[in-house]
Formats: sequence, C-alpha cells, structure tokens
Amino acid sequence: MLSSRIGILGGGQLGLMLLQAAVDWNLDIHVLDPDADAPCKKIAPHFQQGSLQDYQTVYEFGKNLDVITIEIEKVNVEALEALEKEGKKVYPQPSVIRQIQDKRIQKQFYLDNQLPTAEFILTENREDAAKHTTFLPAFHKLGKDGYDGRGVQRLSSEADFEKAFDKPGLLEKAVPFEKELAVIVARNASGEITTFPTVEMVFHPEHNLVEYLFAPAEISGSVNQKAQEIARKTAEAFQIVGLLAVELFLTPEGEVLINEVAPRPHNSGHHTIRANATSQYEQHWRAILNLPLGSTHAYGPSAMVNLLGEDGYEGPAVYEGMETLLSTEEVFPFLYWKAVTKPFRKMGHITIMDADIHALKDKVDFVKKNIRVISKKP
Amino acid sequence: MLSSRIGILGGGQLGLMLLQAAVDWNLDIHVLDPDADAPCKKIAPHFQQGSLQDYQTVYEFGKNLDVITIEIEKVNVEALEALEKEGKKVYPQPSVIRQIQDKRIQKQFYLDNQLPTAEFILTENREDAAKHTTFLPAFHKLGKDGYDGRGVQRLSSEADFEKAFDKPGLLEKAVPFEKELAVIVARNASGEITTFPTVEMVFHPEHNLVEYLFAPAEISGSVNQKAQEIARKTAEAFQIVGLLAVELFLTPEGEVLINEVAPRPHNSGHHTIRANATSQYEQHWRAILNLPLGSTHAYGPSAMVNLLGEDGYEGPAVYEGMETLLSTEEVFPFLYWKAVTKPFRKMGHITIMDADIHALKDKVDFVKKNIRVISKKP
Repeated sequence: MLSSRIGILGGGQLGLMLLQAAVDWNLDIHVLDPDADAPCKKIAPHFQQGSLQDYQTVYEFGKNLDVITIEIEKVNVEALEALEKEGKKVYPQPSVIRQIQDKRIQKQFYLDNQLPTAEFILTENREDAAKHTTFLPAFHKLGKDGYDGRGVQRLSSEADFEKAFDKPGLLEKAVPFEKELAVIVARNASGEITTFPTVEMVFHPEHNLVEYLFAPAEISGSVNQKAQEIARKTAEAFQIVGLLAVELFLTPEGEVLINEVAPRPHNSGHHTIRANATSQYEQHWRAILNLPLGSTHAYGPSAMVNLLGEDGYEGPAVYEGMETLLSTEEVFPFLYWKAVTKPFRKMGHITIMDADIHALKDKVDFVKKNIRVISKKP
Repeated sequence: MLSSRIGILGGGQLGLMLLQAAVDWNLDIHVLDPDADAPCKKIAPHFQQGSLQDYQTVYEFGKNLDVITIEIEKVNVEALEALEKEGKKVYPQPSVIRQIQDKRIQKQFYLDNQLPTAEFILTENREDAAKHTTFLPAFHKLGKDGYDGRGVQRLSSEADFEKAFDKPGLLEKAVPFEKELAVIVARNASGEITTFPTVEMVFHPEHNLVEYLFAPAEISGSVNQKAQEIARKTAEAFQIVGLLAVELFLTPEGEVLINEVAPRPHNSGHHTIRANATSQYEQHWRAILNLPLGSTHAYGPSAMVNLLGEDGYEGPAVYEGMETLLSTEEVFPFLYWKAVTKPFRKMGHITIMDADIHALKDKVDFVKKNIRVISKKP
C-alpha cells in the first residue's frame, strides 16, 4: 500500500501536515488546490492547481491515482463517486462526505443512529427560521459550506433573526455547556478503530474558532469514557475509513452531546504531532492505506494555541515574538506557509508540552501574550 | 532569521530529515546534490542538480543565499570560504569542515586541545604504514573521503598491511572497548550549547556501520558525565556553529576516548525525531539560524535500527515486513526515498520506543528479524 499513488483534495495547512507525516514512508502524493500559492505547493511531490468543486477537474485529477483523500469537505462529491465506481479507493468515502457536508443530514444521522446531540429544527430560509421564536436561544447553522467559524450564528432574541441565514439550515438549541471536548477517531478499511485522548477546547469568544486546547481534557473518568464511546460509535455508524474528528459538548449535568464532526485531520489534533506516539496525520495515512493503526499514547500533557492573524493587519505576514517562544522549553511553533496574513486567518499553531499541568497553563498564557502575526505595510 | 534563504549541500537522507523538520517554520530551502534523483528531490522547495565538489557550482549555488549548511562533509571548502568572505553565513564554518574532512588533522586537533583520543601515527602510504608492525593491532584510516564504513581497515597482523590504504592516512591503536557511545552537541552562533543524551551504538560486525543503538546508553553516571563533558568541550574547541556528533569509545577501565566527529546531523541521532522534545534536525536549524536551542529532553527510552539493503539484492527496493512493523506499538519505520537498493546501502531506519527497557530490547530483536529490503528482479 505504501507504493500507492495518492491524491489529496486540498493543499492547505492540513495537507501540509499530512505531507510532513508522509515523508517517513516515501509516499507518492499528488495535491490539488485552487490556489497556486497554497501552503502545500512548495513541498508536495506533485502539485496541481485546479478547482476542488469542478467535476471534470477532480475526476481527471483522481483517475490516474490509486487512493484519493481530502483535507477539506467542500469538494465535488459526484466526481469522487465516479472514481469510487471505477475502483479507486476514495477515503473518507464519498457517501460519508456527502452526509457530513450538509449539517442538516449530519444532524438527522445522529438522531437515526441514537447518537446524542442537541435538539434541532430544520429550516429552509430566514423567514422559516424566524417562526421558531420559542426555540431560542439557539444557533442557526448553514446546511452547507460553513467552515472555520463561518456559517454559525447565535440567536438570543427575536431581533437576532435578521442574522439568520437565508438558505437551508438548522436551528440548534443552545445547550448550556461546561466544556467543549473533542475526540479524534481513526478507522481503517479492515474496521480497526483507535481514538486519541479526549481534548478540551476553548473557543475564541467572537470568532467561533478554537483559541487553544488542553490534552488530556480535565474531566472525570466517567465523562471521558462517555466521550470516547460516543466518538467511537459515531465513527462506526458512519463506517468511515480515515479520521473522524468528533466535537462534543459537556453539559453541567454531565451529559455529552455531539456538536459536529469532520471526516479528516482536525484543528483539535495538531498537538498530536509533538505529544503522541502517532500523530493524527500519520494515523490518517495508516487508516486510508489500510495499515495497522498506531498507538495514540501521549508522552505527557500538552496544549495547542492557534496562531491567528492579528485584527487590523492584512499583508505579508510578520511573526512577532517567535524567538521568545523558541527560548521557552517545549514550546513549538508551526507555521502554515501562508505569505499573507488577514484578521483571524489561521496562520499557524503552537504546541506546548510540560509534565506539570500548572506550568503548562502558565506557558499557554505566556504564548498567547508573546506572539502576534502582523503585517508591516509592504 | 526564519525568512533567510537557506542552502543545503547534499540532498541525501540527512537532508531529507532536515527538510521535514523545516516544514514547521516555513523555511525557504535550496538543496544541491549531484544526483537528479536524490532523496530530497521531490520535497525540497528548491532543488538543483550539481556537483558538491566543483568550486564554481558550489559558489554559484551559495551566492544568492543567506545561510549555507551541509549534510555531508565531502564538499568544496574553497567555495564555502569564498562565500563566507562575502558575508554569507556558512555553518558549520568552512574552517571546521576542513579540520574534520581530514582525519589526520582531526586527530592532531584532539591532541592539541587535550581531548582524549586513542594513540595514533600519521602515515603517508601503504609502505609507510607497514613500518609500524609493533603498533598492531590498529585501524588504518584514510585521511580523506572515508564515509559510511568505507576508509577504515582493521589490521591485526603484518599480513594485513596489504589491506592498508596507499594514500595519506593514520594508524590508530585498536583500543579494546566495552561500548561505543555517541553524544550530539549543538552550538549556536551566540555560543549557547546543548547536548543530547548519550547513546550506545552497536556496529555491524563486518561493515563498520551502525546496526542499532539504544538511548540512553546503559552506563554509569560518572561515565555519562565524562562523555557529555568531552563532547561539549570538543564542540567548544572547534567553536562550531551547528551540530557536532561525537563518537566515543568506552574502555574496560572506564576511560572515554573520542573516536571521530561529524559536523552535521548524524546516524546516532535519528531516534530524536520521535523520542526527544527537539530532534537533532530541528536543533540544527536552531543552531545555524542562531535561535535559542531547544530542550533535548527524551520522552522515554528508545532504540534505532538501521535498515540496510539486504546482501545479494540490487534493484528497485521492496520493503518486506513493513506491515508487521507497523502493527507493533511504537515502532516507526522511516524510509529514505531511494528507489534502488544495494547490499548494505542505508535505505531507512526504524525508531522504537518503549517505557520498559526489556520490552524495548525485545522489540529491537523483533524488528531486526522482521524487515528486509530486497529487490525482485525488475
């Protein structure tokens, strides 16, 4: 399987980290991305510029390959289905991408499979959503194309309905939660399953992006077991081949609910590159090449801070404070090969390790205070 | 410093691992190698085919770059000296490469700096060497161009002198030793120094190549301290900027002697990619970019087995047993992107981790038994 010709749809940061992990096994990887300067461009063994949403482009890209995978869900699924019919290995399976691409189908799937998730109502447009005043507070979620914090609006009062999306979506009951958790599951074609330790995510108050996370989550053993079981069952329900990142809410009553899932490497697993025996990226390769899955054992507590473009700056990126971070023990910045910064653009992340959990938290604060991605006017 | 244009002379496996580590920091790397199919070719941001020993090629390669480094010592030092004079940062410094390139100068350097090493006699040719019958048993070492086990001959009796090199070299007293150790030291331009934990190497009985190693070495605290101190002092004596791998003999009397050094990432540090907070490759970048050096803390005991081409096979490489290795916890094969295998060619390595030292040793045996690089007739 290691000699397969492999394609990745998408050449962003997740693709970049997949490529880095693939160096160990000399994998023959072809990357397709619409951006001629995509993060993967310079180090992909093969790079092709082209649309991920155009049937012909995706089909032609895949037809000379053996295994095709994705690092973003917004791809032409029809082309992937055609490739699958011709005997290509397409992982995650197009049917799974289709189910997850549309949050309406995704939510219905949880109901159908007795997987716990917050109550919801499907809505067709803004007007339709606005009928459900008694369902507030709620999140209005766009059915398709939400990504990196876009496509989600919190609606607290009737007046907020003007912020609702005027497209098919869903209203999801705003569940009071104590913590947001995530579990990354890997499943290979033989059905072998492993999970990574549960992590605890803290979101940016405004931008619905992960600001930082801790691994492992500080939760009770029984909550952890629940989270791990739900994640595993969800992967089994989808019969996914590849990674499934399962984002979860922990309610004050100790209930664990699925928020949403992603069928690929995920922001909640970047720290595994440094902190775990097998990273999520290597695990993805193992899963889709139907190799035995690796140990997800962590070498110690870790944290991950997303490095977002500073508000108010747009232009060639300058990383202020890199040396300060590098002079702190076990603080590991990772940059995403993006030439230009924009407000809140994901420009990199910083993994932090420390055997002492208090020292780890202090380092997170230190990191957040000491690095900024800005731009000096060119 | 992270935005420097960086050149590596040599695009073999050490370059490959340097490139992999450079992904984290978006380093702009240019690789020069004579082989159009060098391991680095497909993933280097920039790759140029050309001789490492031709003055003009090396000079032209370096003149548009800011920082130039090496992954092999056999390079044109005059060109590097010219680049250094023009203000380029050339690390390790050409003067250090010159001293280390010639084992005769290297040995003399240890004497001059009161660094412990086995007794030796410089020899001009075979005839000259053959005069020193009373110095046997000894190793005859070629002054220049020895590499990967070539350029060293053990001479036990007078008859063996026919195996001596007919070029400038040295006779080194064959020291009875209990173990061979290695310590990798990093030193940045500001003079900051760190060492990696001492490792214990086991050489292939015939081929003078590392067969496998354990980290940390099973030695007493005082021997370890001696090894670490000698390594640090050696790096300071050279005033090297970059990595210095110091290979050492431990005698039955507990004496520690320098065998030889390499001014670059080294086979005795491959395991640091998986086992240590900072790998030797990342540490090399930190050192030559004059960044703070990283923690060399190990997350647990580890071992590394070199994956050599099986004797009797030459042709397109086939890796027998990869799945078996991948199904064993914390066994991590790393392949070197070499299309063709040859007897005893370094084709990859396998890093093994286990918190239990006995289990670790069992895994080493298991790995050695279960993987082979062969070739099926093409």
